[in-house]
Amino acid sequence: MPPDHRVYQIGEAMPRSDALGKATGAEKFSIDTYGNDLLWAGVKRGGVPHARIRGIDIQAAQTTPGVRAVLTARDVNGTNRQGVIRKDQPVLADDRVRHCGDAVALVVAESSAALEAALDRIVLDLDPLEAIFDPEAALRDDAPLIHPDHAGGNTLFHATIQNGDPQQALSDCDAVVEGCFDLPRQAHAFLETENGWALADDEGRLDITVSTQTPFRDRLEVAEALGLAVDRIRIRAPFCGGAFGGKDGITVQSLLALAALSCPGRPVKMWWRREESFLAGVKRHPARLYYRLGADRDGTLKAVSARIYLDTGPYDHLGGVVAALGLEHAGGPYRIPHADLAVWAAYTNNPVSGAFRGFGVPQVAAAMESMMDMVAAKLRICPLALRRKNALVRGDRCPAGVTRQGSVGLLECLKTLEAHPLWKEREHWKASAGPNTMRGTGIACISHGMGYGPTVPDSATAGIRLMDDGRFEVMAGVVDMGQGNAAAYLQMAGDILSQPPGHLIPVLPDTDKTFPSGSSSASRTTFTYGNALIGAARALKERIFARAADALMVSDTSALILVPGAVRHLATGREITLSRLGMFLNPAERFATYHYRAPVSGEAPHPDGNLRLHGFPHSIFSHAAHLVRVEVDALTGQVSVPEYLGVNDCGRILNPQNFSGQQEGAVVQGLGYALYEEVIADKGRMMTRDFTTYIIPTALDAPKIESVAVALAEEAGPFGLKGAGEIGIDIPLPAVANALFDACGVRLLKFPMTPERILTALVKKDAP
Amino acid sequence: MPPDHRVYQIGEAMPRSDALGKATGAEKFSIDTYGNDLLWAGVKRGGVPHARIRGIDIQAAQTTPGVRAVLTARDVNGTNRQGVIRKDQPVLADDRVRHCGDAVALVVAESSAALEAALDRIVLDLDPLEAIFDPEAALRDDAPLIHPDHAGGNTLFHATIQNGDPQQALSDCDAVVEGCFDLPRQAHAFLETENGWALADDEGRLDITVSTQTPFRDRLEVAEALGLAVDRIRIRAPFCGGAFGGKDGITVQSLLALAALSCPGRPVKMWWRREESFLAGVKRHPARLYYRLGADRDGTLKAVSARIYLDTGPYDHLGGVVAALGLEHAGGPYRIPHADLAVWAAYTNNPVSGAFRGFGVPQVAAAMESMMDMVAAKLRICPLALRRKNALVRGDRCPAGVTRQGSVGLLECLKTLEAHPLWKEREHWKASAGPNTMRGTGIACISHGMGYGPTVPDSATAGIRLMDDGRFEVMAGVVDMGQGNAAAYLQMAGDILSQPPGHLIPVLPDTDKTFPSGSSSASRTTFTYGNALIGAARALKERIFARAADALMVSDTSALILVPGAVRHLATGREITLSRLGMFLNPAERFATYHYRAPVSGEAPHPDGNLRLHGFPHSIFSHAAHLVRVEVDALTGQVSVPEYLGVNDCGRILNPQNFSGQQEGAVVQGLGYALYEEVIADKGRMMTRDFTTYIIPTALDAPKIESVAVALAEEAGPFGLKGAGEIGIDIPLPAVANALFDACGVRLLKFPMTPERILTALVKKDAP
Repeated sequence: MPPDHRVYQIGEAMPRSDALGKATGAEKFSIDTYGNDLLWAGVKRGGVPHARIRGIDIQAAQTTPGVRAVLTARDVNGTNRQGVIRKDQPVLADDRVRHCGDAVALVVAESSAALEAALDRIVLDLDPLEAIFDPEAALRDDAPLIHPDHAGGNTLFHATIQNGDPQQALSDCDAVVEGCFDLPRQAHAFLETENGWALADDEGRLDITVSTQTPFRDRLEVAEALGLAVDRIRIRAPFCGGAFGGKDGITVQSLLALAALSCPGRPVKMWWRREESFLAGVKRHPARLYYRLGADRDGTLKAVSARIYLDTGPYDHLGGVVAALGLEHAGGPYRIPHADLAVWAAYTNNPVSGAFRGFGVPQVAAAMESMMDMVAAKLRICPLALRRKNALVRGDRCPAGVTRQGSVGLLECLKTLEAHPLWKEREHWKASAGPNTMRGTGIACISHGMGYGPTVPDSATAGIRLMDDGRFEVMAGVVDMGQGNAAAYLQMAGDILSQPPGHLIPVLPDTDKTFPSGSSSASRTTFTYGNALIGAARALKERIFARAADALMVSDTSALILVPGAVRHLATGREITLSRLGMFLNPAERFATYHYRAPVSGEAPHPDGNLRLHGFPHSIFSHAAHLVRVEVDALTGQVSVPEYLGVNDCGRILNPQNFSGQQEGAVVQGLGYALYEEVIADKGRMMTRDFTTYIIPTALDAPKIESVAVALAEEAGPFGLKGAGEIGIDIPLPAVANALFDACGVRLLKFPMTPERILTALVKKDAP
Repeated sequence: MPPDHRVYQIGEAMPRSDALGKATGAEKFSIDTYGNDLLWAGVKRGGVPHARIRGIDIQAAQTTPGVRAVLTARDVNGTNRQGVIRKDQPVLADDRVRHCGDAVALVVAESSAALEAALDRIVLDLDPLEAIFDPEAALRDDAPLIHPDHAGGNTLFHATIQNGDPQQALSDCDAVVEGCFDLPRQAHAFLETENGWALADDEGRLDITVSTQTPFRDRLEVAEALGLAVDRIRIRAPFCGGAFGGKDGITVQSLLALAALSCPGRPVKMWWRREESFLAGVKRHPARLYYRLGADRDGTLKAVSARIYLDTGPYDHLGGVVAALGLEHAGGPYRIPHADLAVWAAYTNNPVSGAFRGFGVPQVAAAMESMMDMVAAKLRICPLALRRKNALVRGDRCPAGVTRQGSVGLLECLKTLEAHPLWKEREHWKASAGPNTMRGTGIACISHGMGYGPTVPDSATAGIRLMDDGRFEVMAGVVDMGQGNAAAYLQMAGDILSQPPGHLIPVLPDTDKTFPSGSSSASRTTFTYGNALIGAARALKERIFARAADALMVSDTSALILVPGAVRHLATGREITLSRLGMFLNPAERFATYHYRAPVSGEAPHPDGNLRLHGFPHSIFSHAAHLVRVEVDALTGQVSVPEYLGVNDCGRILNPQNFSGQQEGAVVQGLGYALYEEVIADKGRMMTRDFTTYIIPTALDAPKIESVAVALAEEAGPFGLKGAGEIGIDIPLPAVANALFDACGVRLLKFPMTPERILTALVKKDAP
């Protein structure tokens, strides 16, 4: 039997099915889509943080050679508004510009040169408005309003959670620490920037290929914003060349659709270059967090208070949901009976903030896990012992009042970390630092809720089809943005159907061919779609057995098994090939679908319906405890990270190789957040335009990363797994901050921890 | 929340629930059972390998002071025959003695001193018969018959499996190797030797506590042999102080029952001392195996031929089943299209052979895995590459014609082993040997079938009960002989019911309190009983939720969860304690049972009904690839084993800590089999009487063992697991044999590999 007859099996470490195509360049991303007779579309942007639009002079642009269309808000027939929860973002700005990257006009041209020329010739007549750039300042009564029609003023979202009597409890504690933390704006820095390709036919039907995390939601957004019937729009979503949340929501879709409709019969391409991506794409919310944390002398945590301000930019773009998830996680994965938690997502004239891997949790974890070490230092308790003492176990309520119902592996993670040489030998390692080098070890913990929470249906519909040639098509409506879920689906279906890799063909998201299965986000794809796929694959298997029993003239289907390419009757050894069955069966019989909806917490720890709408509370959580070793150069403040250990409880592991890869990627992205990455908008103007000023870690900066799984079984998970996509990015930052403190006794509260900030703190600490 | 509120979770590494009680001596084994007014029972044994019994003079014994009863076969009212498949073993010998350890008379006395004195005074009048000690010789037509009434002569069991055209294929192969292997008689060497305690009341009802693997089967055996009604016998089976197969079947049970019935109202104890255990207890089958293995030049295996002779001693005692399992596994876990396999279990006058961890597989693996390295050497192929090339994958048929239906992780094990430093750095390590030291690395592979196979029902019934105080009793009718399954059951039920350790109480096997669940053997206990327990625990959980919903006056049980000691209504946070529910509920409602029967292969690769009766074929297999490093002292032939790596595919892991412990124990026992252990019976007379001549590895002899799990998910397994109890002992021997060859170029075919044998081989090799 040739090696390719080795069937897929759950739990087996293997290269992803998409690896070869990507490594060799054979895989086509959205960016690789070109058509004959291509037109280019591009956007004229506002260029100022806040202004009333008095006029847009497009005449010169229209007459530029090679220009096919110049469009403004007047050309938009629908609501001209987009957004998942609150629809507040125009396709093309109509009355005002709310940040420098706002799209004001759209040009379609025969070439990129013509496009650039035309965009340069559009003249905007803008009446500057007072702008606001600080989220706390934005909430003051006298702040200029960014959406004057919005009932909440500049408050996009606000919620509080109160348990026990936090103020009294804080005043009763033996030790209370406090801090104000500033977290930066982080860019997704995906390889493939925002782009798409669209073609309108003469009847106005649209065929759009786009780099997106949400093809089915995109279709609704485009239809509503442009005033189109949903069934006239087809969206195809190939593999993304990175997304990380930055493509969770509209980027180019409506603009492209508008451009294509203006030039029927001609394919139109839009591709935001890196600078435009920095300017107009969403970013991780910058945040300011005021924390107080109190404990008894023995380290028992008693009370936590947090005031969290998120700068959401001028549009919702999931900012409210990000805020709600941050609030839910603000008290960390600990038993703290008294809690006073509050969050505000404030409109500003800064760049738009939105979804980013971690989704509000990295910000609160940065603060909370720093606070944990600050309490430990004050009480002279080992930071690990403090965490073990207070770690949530199954059945406990977290500080937000949410019961942990599913598997809870936090203590298991801590135990594993504690037994690891990187922890046990930390003092020896620290003491062996070379000259002018300070070494330290830091840890941090997290739990991360999975899925959409209670209100938005967290569901998926899987389809699987036996083809004429005996192979299977797996129809997945949820995007693979690089995390490997498409490969995971083949592994799941392949295990159930006992087929080897070449016998399963992925059908990537396409609103015409696959089924609505939600966004590729919230650590949900393999969990939710995976459960749907298990149902579909098992249903198809039963159907195949029933028909194979007929064909083999046996009465008992329980004596049948699937082997590569065939059904075998065990008692007699006779086989019928799947290709023969494929030819026998009616197309409807060969196609099985299954709809799955993820479990939702029946808990209502807070009466606020708005909070519930924004996804609170969750019912299943993954957990992690991470350890980092840092070396600080005492002369330059430069931090290097030689070793990293991530211990994760993400349930049972589907493919250990892909799991490690996903965790390593998240850790490196989290180290960038900790040490280098900051998108700077100076009074709303983007100062960070490319990777010469936006520093992301390269392979040479990455530590040696060990990724360990404590593989508890999650009952609700497909084959026992839980979401693993986000948790790895939540705590590299506080782990490094704690390691930095261990190394040189300075505690940074403003991030990233650049050499300048570290050196300044070192100098200040050593000052007499 | 105190730490003991941490609930059980599947996949969590934790100390076994029985660890503390055992470590502190609080746990009571059968051997620890004493009653007031105790009598001692003991056995007079035949003392010769083969003889007709002319008379037994018990008069002097009867009149010995303190003697209460002296019994012989005449006092047995039933069949006086015991055995699982074939009932050929007398409780007390009637017509003849068939091995030196045969029980001939039974004495009950007030003290061990009186007992010993009386036993010495029993005079046997024996007429010696020609005896037979070699299994091959026993099969000759002219051999003296051990059971003249047995239709098969001295053949207890014989079967053949033929696939393809093995003779032609062997002659067509590019390379053929052959060997004749001799495997020793191994003793279980359990800490707690065979013993028990029995009390008959005045109505003749028996209450027996015994160190056994099979309490429910014991009851049937005792009833039939002694002519009693089954419902008059109660058997209790505490934790065993080791068993390993040596208590899978009758040891003291019938003798004890007979003794107790002779002295109603007085508790009777029987305890075989170490010497008696060596003499009368069962052992692993000594075996002689003739192998031929052929391959093509490129390493593709083509044909295997094996003739396997097992010395089963004078009684079946599962010897036929051992032979059948050996036959099924004889061709190894490889694709070999042509196979000619045959096994004989021959009656001899040696000590009784029977069940022993591995159950026939260690013998065939010793030969087959040596053969693999011999082929590799002949073809100059890497032994690991040869195994990877031919390793079975799911859907393949093994050489015995059995389809691998479940998860098959052999290639995954080999891949993991290949990537390990112990493999990758083997040449460097070998080259750095000190003076007079030769170093080598060896590997071996195995697959091991789980459970009873098709004919004997491999089923279990679990019971679980909510107690008045809110705790749960878990009723398990399957014995924990030390492997930790009792703890595994608490972990399973505890996870499903979300309860912490102290809230679950094990009820150990007791024919009055628990349900028939088969033997503790065949790597089946956690799989089969575990699946039953999942059913029972879920059923009880549903019932608890239904009644809790009534008590809490809520309509939807889906909003209820279990937390330690209570049911919580998530929507309102209200709780009702389990103790309150325990008091509410009717006893019948609080008790859930579930019956589970393990899946059976629908395959019939061989028409032989006898083979099927003896358990062929299996449907689910665990897999392993092991690596060992050995150092050979060139001057003494002494082998030391510094490092061992076991990579195992036993499905998903329930408790990583217990899994490692179980694998390490098996490896050390397997190394004893490889290097030291041999029970010598010289012309049927036991020469090995204690641990001064029977050498088992101590902690100081044990290597550093790393145990890695490739945790594939087995669909049929409880939480995805497969049997793990036996596989670890199957291949240490061939791994060491292959390492020895790698170290110094000598290939031993006779085991154990004692310094004498190694030195002799070295001298012979170096002779001109």
